[in-house]
Amino acid sequence: MKEAREGEERLAFDPADNDGPRVAFIGRIHTPWKPGDAPGNVAGARKRVAKEGGAFRIELAEGYQPGIKDLTVGQHIIVLYWMDQARRDLIVQTPRHADAPRGVFSLRSPNRPNPIAMSTVEIVSLDVEAGVIGIDALDCFDGTPVVDLKPWIATIDAPVA
Amino acid sequence: MKEAREGEERLAFDPADNDGPRVAFIGRIHTPWKPGDAPGNVAGARKRVAKEGGAFRIELAEGYQPGIKDLTVGQHIIVLYWMDQARRDLIVQTPRHADAPRGVFSLRSPNRPNPIAMSTVEIVSLDVEAGVIGIDALDCFDGTPVVDLKPWIATIDAPVA
Repeated sequence: MKEAREGEERLAFDPADNDGPRVAFIGRIHTPWKPGDAPGNVAGARKRVAKEGGAFRIELAEGYQPGIKDLTVGQHIIVLYWMDQARRDLIVQTPRHADAPRGVFSLRSPNRPNPIAMSTVEIVSLDVEAGVIGIDALDCFDGTPVVDLKPWIATIDAPVA
Repeated sequence: MKEAREGEERLAFDPADNDGPRVAFIGRIHTPWKPGDAPGNVAGARKRVAKEGGAFRIELAEGYQPGIKDLTVGQHIIVLYWMDQARRDLIVQTPRHADAPRGVFSLRSPNRPNPIAMSTVEIVSLDVEAGVIGIDALDCFDGTPVVDLKPWIATIDAPVA
């Protein structure tokens, strides 16, 4: 778990301690990345893949396979994943790329009250029976839990001018 | 809780029954919509707002206010919200707009193993001290819990051709 940096503010409570509903892990993401050697986001992951190569896949947990039967290779999906090594109490943070402390909801930091990360990726292979989806890239550590997959839809997901 | 329709398949277990981490509700969304009279997605909400008007705001729970201090009016953010009236066990569903049962991960249905909905919206007003964000529209029922807010970033959130 990361240390707090200067200028950072913590919540007076831990958001993990509450009586809210439980997240179900529907599968795991497999990537080449380990702690200390991971890109900062999916765009950084794509740059590294262009240089170094690398395979990325989502393996569903038992029972969830029928849920992917209507996805297609070439489709863009949104992956929601649970950053299980993140802190949940840093409400103001100083990322390395920022010159001042920033409110967590203006950042894409994995450290957030609900450590759900999301990226839009392309499906490059699909084995419905095995419950395995190959994707073009992702930034998380190998073994990160997945919580949802959604089709990307412009009228819901793109900014409306 | 909605009834299962013909052709729908249920998981052999309830994803709510697990030992995963708990979601923290960081606030509530206020909309004009009630069960039985809500649009199907944020695009539908915008159409109704154009005709009928309607105000939409996110009210943060106590303690989370510093997290929004660097957001700005006019910015597009992604709202993640927990559809607390949804079913979590429908792995194959027949939505009204579909002619055949579809795997849940190819749908934006609120009924999903982790009932997290997401839409990209525009900030129209901001009161950091009060923890209130006015947004242009949203499709959920009044009082729906929020679980995360993120800045929309093209290189992470738009499909890469």
